[in-house]
Amino acid sequence: MSIITGNAVVFTQGGPTAVINASWVGVVEGLMNAKEITGIYGSMHGIDGILNEDFVDLRAQSVATLQAVSRTPATALLSTRHKPNADDNKKMLEIFKKYNIRYVFGAGGNDTSESLDIINDAAKSIEYELRLFHVAKTVDNDLMENDHTPGYASAARYVANAFRGVDLDNQCFGGVYLGVCMGRHAGFLTAASALGRTAPDSGPHLVYVPEMAFDVAQFVKDVEAVYKKYGRCVIAVSEGIEDKNHTPILQLLSTGNLEADSHGNVQLSGTGALADALIGKIKEHLEGNGTVKKLRARGDTFGYLQRSFPDQSPVDYAETIGLGKFAAQMALSGNIDGSVAMQRVSNAPYKMEYKLVKLKSVAGKTRHLPREHVNAAGNNVTDAFIKWGKPLIGELYQFGVLDTSKKVAKK
Amino acid sequence: MSIITGNAVVFTQGGPTAVINASWVGVVEGLMNAKEITGIYGSMHGIDGILNEDFVDLRAQSVATLQAVSRTPATALLSTRHKPNADDNKKMLEIFKKYNIRYVFGAGGNDTSESLDIINDAAKSIEYELRLFHVAKTVDNDLMENDHTPGYASAARYVANAFRGVDLDNQCFGGVYLGVCMGRHAGFLTAASALGRTAPDSGPHLVYVPEMAFDVAQFVKDVEAVYKKYGRCVIAVSEGIEDKNHTPILQLLSTGNLEADSHGNVQLSGTGALADALIGKIKEHLEGNGTVKKLRARGDTFGYLQRSFPDQSPVDYAETIGLGKFAAQMALSGNIDGSVAMQRVSNAPYKMEYKLVKLKSVAGKTRHLPREHVNAAGNNVTDAFIKWGKPLIGELYQFGVLDTSKKVAKK
Repeated sequence: MSIITGNAVVFTQGGPTAVINASWVGVVEGLMNAKEITGIYGSMHGIDGILNEDFVDLRAQSVATLQAVSRTPATALLSTRHKPNADDNKKMLEIFKKYNIRYVFGAGGNDTSESLDIINDAAKSIEYELRLFHVAKTVDNDLMENDHTPGYASAARYVANAFRGVDLDNQCFGGVYLGVCMGRHAGFLTAASALGRTAPDSGPHLVYVPEMAFDVAQFVKDVEAVYKKYGRCVIAVSEGIEDKNHTPILQLLSTGNLEADSHGNVQLSGTGALADALIGKIKEHLEGNGTVKKLRARGDTFGYLQRSFPDQSPVDYAETIGLGKFAAQMALSGNIDGSVAMQRVSNAPYKMEYKLVKLKSVAGKTRHLPREHVNAAGNNVTDAFIKWGKPLIGELYQFGVLDTSKKVAKK
Repeated sequence: MSIITGNAVVFTQGGPTAVINASWVGVVEGLMNAKEITGIYGSMHGIDGILNEDFVDLRAQSVATLQAVSRTPATALLSTRHKPNADDNKKMLEIFKKYNIRYVFGAGGNDTSESLDIINDAAKSIEYELRLFHVAKTVDNDLMENDHTPGYASAARYVANAFRGVDLDNQCFGGVYLGVCMGRHAGFLTAASALGRTAPDSGPHLVYVPEMAFDVAQFVKDVEAVYKKYGRCVIAVSEGIEDKNHTPILQLLSTGNLEADSHGNVQLSGTGALADALIGKIKEHLEGNGTVKKLRARGDTFGYLQRSFPDQSPVDYAETIGLGKFAAQMALSGNIDGSVAMQRVSNAPYKMEYKLVKLKSVAGKTRHLPREHVNAAGNNVTDAFIKWGKPLIGELYQFGVLDTSKKVAKK
């Protein structure tokens, strides 16, 4: 297959991650010296930059700048959640022609892969020769064909470190602590709360993911059982937990109006309502049935820091730069389109490989936490999940443990 | 003055920090080889461990254990918010006699210093020879006689890093982001949000602290002005902001019941209500007056992670271990009582010294952010604050900046 000559455009869409810059910098590095690539454009604000012809010249950036940007969280190419309609697609194709754009690389999640698929079909329908690639990205880790996605491991590292810290904090006073994690339909990020456990009684003691039907009555009983055992309970909950009828728990317990984005998704992040409501239910139950007179119970919503805290997992960074380079290589070796994915070859030793998969096998679909990663009761992760997750997040802080068995004899 | 021979007890109280273990480990290291100290007891759960005669033998811990524990966030001696009453004091003195406890070291904040002062007065009233020292600790940085307190710098480091990340995230889409930080009466931690700014247009663009009367109507106007300038606005707000009549804004805007602790303080942490309410006010204003049709506005409450995230500021760690050792040295050199404090000698180069101050000059008092650290409008910090805070938090992550002035020419 012949390699077409023309300009390349790279863009980023959806929620940023700690390593999304590494995705597109990897693509740029992979294309940098290819003579078929006449120019490398960075489209600002995702596809909006194409529609507005707002392109930064990425070949004009210094090596040092690209390197530094790749280590920086969030996306320097900015983002959008704009879902292209028929008019947008028509306009984009005209702009591709005008600028002789022949290579398109979009980093994003499910919604982005869907948008790219639509653009690709539109180009094919008018027989415009385009090389179009989706570069997997999402902290939610919910893309089909991927063992894990760029951005997930850094967010998981943050969540694991955060729960290690709040678990020690909770030990100091006892009581209940609940942390709400991102995850609309997939529980991978919430499950990562368990990756920092250091002892059999370490929190989180309970983990609730959107894949399992959430029952408020059972939930408060679960909390009661842990509280009676340890005098404390640390809980991780996905923002997207739903009841058996798939009604979001936030919606069930919330009194205010909920906001939806352009893809029709109800806003779950950026509000503390779910944590506050669940803490209310726990207090009602444990104080109501006399388990404790006055429960110390606190709820935090981890919010945007999960994706924006500037602490990249070293594994995530290295793999993401590589995935971008792999996308460039696929484009320069004659492939027409697809999504570049990360698949696991083996767990011990940890080994991952890149693969070009069909765009339609990723576009708009959602991958879920495997059933074997959740326990039978649906209130915790399994060892299988821990083994899967640990290689991704890098070394955590080392903690010391006081030997409290060495007591002073009572007089 | 003669050095009394007897046992020493160390304990920790109030909210944990990332370095509170370093405080008491420093004391233990300072006492370890003193022959006047017959035993070193760790009282579990603050003064509750004294009342329950629940002491861990700290001399029996290995050097490696103590070292590792000192690098671990939260307190391995656990905590309490128990405020001793007259009966408690009487009982404690009996236990001091029974165990020949002659040295008491308590790490904590304002409430703890007040409790220690009461115990000290009780011991003096019965002429029981006691050496009693308060070791400053609080993420709020609100202790009198201290330039800064152990725990503050690590919490400030977290807040600074968090705001650097969310500021980049906010750039990707535009809109409003609001983060609520800990700080009941003192704005030091919220002010730290500004310590990671990298450019003139970096967020947080607005910073509100409890020291300045908060006016909701002026607040939404401030946000509007920034939003009109940058198409976005990042805001840091203290949980303890109050109106001009000293009514907490959370109380003004909240509909639910608010909880109070044993010191009579209304619970401000562990609820997302303030962020949600302020975001509601911003949307109401900017959408209501037509500035924007539909505002993307998100609020996070940073919550417990500020004090529990396991990332110690290197400066904080080193200074805190040293403060504990200083307390031991003061006790072993014939001082009767006091609070060990950290005072700044010079800012450039940064130099700090330890000082023994009167317990009553710290006990139960609150230090506030100096007026010169807040701008005239009361909606931001000044350069004076930035210069004061930067030496405390250690190196932050290095970020790269894409040169977006290098545009592709429009066709």
